[in-house]
Amino acid sequence: MSGPVASADRWRVRPGGRLDLGAIDTGDPAGAPGDKGRDQRGHLAPGHPAGRAPERLWAEDRRSLLLVLQALDAGGKDGTVKHVFRGINPAGRRITSFKQPSDEELAHDFLWRVHVAAPARGEIGVFNRSHYEDVLIARVAKLVPEEVWRPRFDAIWAWEAHLPAAGTEIVKILLHISPDEQAQRFQARLDDLSKHWKFRLADLEVRDQWDEYQAAYTEAIERTTTDEAPWYVVPADRKWYRNWAVSTILVEHLEKLDPQWASRATWPRSSRGW
Amino acid sequence: MSGPVASADRWRVRPGGRLDLGAIDTGDPAGAPGDKGRDQRGHLAPGHPAGRAPERLWAEDRRSLLLVLQALDAGGKDGTVKHVFRGINPAGRRITSFKQPSDEELAHDFLWRVHVAAPARGEIGVFNRSHYEDVLIARVAKLVPEEVWRPRFDAIWAWEAHLPAAGTEIVKILLHISPDEQAQRFQARLDDLSKHWKFRLADLEVRDQWDEYQAAYTEAIERTTTDEAPWYVVPADRKWYRNWAVSTILVEHLEKLDPQWASRATWPRSSRGW
Repeated sequence: MSGPVASADRWRVRPGGRLDLGAIDTGDPAGAPGDKGRDQRGHLAPGHPAGRAPERLWAEDRRSLLLVLQALDAGGKDGTVKHVFRGINPAGRRITSFKQPSDEELAHDFLWRVHVAAPARGEIGVFNRSHYEDVLIARVAKLVPEEVWRPRFDAIWAWEAHLPAAGTEIVKILLHISPDEQAQRFQARLDDLSKHWKFRLADLEVRDQWDEYQAAYTEAIERTTTDEAPWYVVPADRKWYRNWAVSTILVEHLEKLDPQWASRATWPRSSRGW
Repeated sequence: MSGPVASADRWRVRPGGRLDLGAIDTGDPAGAPGDKGRDQRGHLAPGHPAGRAPERLWAEDRRSLLLVLQALDAGGKDGTVKHVFRGINPAGRRITSFKQPSDEELAHDFLWRVHVAAPARGEIGVFNRSHYEDVLIARVAKLVPEEVWRPRFDAIWAWEAHLPAAGTEIVKILLHISPDEQAQRFQARLDDLSKHWKFRLADLEVRDQWDEYQAAYTEAIERTTTDEAPWYVVPADRKWYRNWAVSTILVEHLEKLDPQWASRATWPRSSRGW
């Protein structure tokens, strides 16, 4: 039905293996079909056959997809959401940006707010930041001691292992940038009034902890990349490449699900049988 | 600070052991301090020192307690909630009755709606029915095949193992009645206009599946009773005994937590460090 798809394998982190973030070229445009002039959404661009996969997912109303987007500050999470998901049927999209937790969120376990926001059947859910902050910033900024954050790997693992049974496909992507690229983006935020709101002084403090964050990301990814909930590390210094890569990964998972056109009126309401 | 408390051990189901529901006398008043004339709330009755434990939990604002109440139809869940919890500060109570799932609930994994309803810090959360219905009615009424409901034991186990890390104490109670007692209560519902609304014809069908439900309860309890999330089987033919036993179990867990009076204004806002 759809054209050949570039393999997302090149960015996938294999379970059981080691991850060396420092060895990954953040500016690498490997595998890209052409230049930055083409539509950066790749297979999700209008007109491409695979572009209707989200619509089929929505029509089928049986499975869902959860995309977890993580990156350091200025890593391009907002831009990715804006460019990759603008063409996707808004009715089937549930995009949640997780910021510093609210009082209500803090009054529950750390998985509570992400479970509440999990995609319903038919939906593509996007987490802009996620439960991983509770093993990243919580670890590096020493918000909690190690005996609190370390057991969270197991809790994350179990939660992500449970969702696929309900038909949720999980995809996790780290947008990987270099310190130089981050510095340029911070400067751009200071130089451009329309980007000022994105800059916080605290960002500079986080920047000083670059190595600690790389280490925290490495362990979090190694501990939680599985066949059912794989991590991808996408070189993200080039925005067009980043958008193309994220689209490619997304489409590959949607095609794996291969959702079928179906009438929401006649399809069995739930795989849960009630 | 408080008087001697009867031990809840007599009703506790030990991890790793076998459970024989048929061997438990559902009319047994063993261990009760007196007759049914006394206040049925036992240690939660007004004036008893332990009665302020829920208030201390609320004031402390660091931990929470989740009580899962399960029973067959007419087993006394509603009555237990009404009698045991009427004296407890409403601000610190979160009582959720789980009925046939809504469309929105069905559109998510089976743990979604219970996670959403989990108690916040300081609260006592009560589930009147729960996620266990997805391994009980879902199993006996064959709403889903075994390959769907059986893996749910592991998912439940993992979810209940995760909550204590966030300060939630979990207590699970089966109100255990006899077929004769159930028959009498059904008849009472038909004879009393004010109880008609509780009777559904479908109840009779469930009654025909008594043995299947006993088997489903037995396996569910054996598979999910742990030191951190123990099951209790309370003989519940006598309502006064049932209320006293549930109060006793509840108080024992609250005293184990031993919440401290504290100012909500000065206490650290969260153990999660944000």
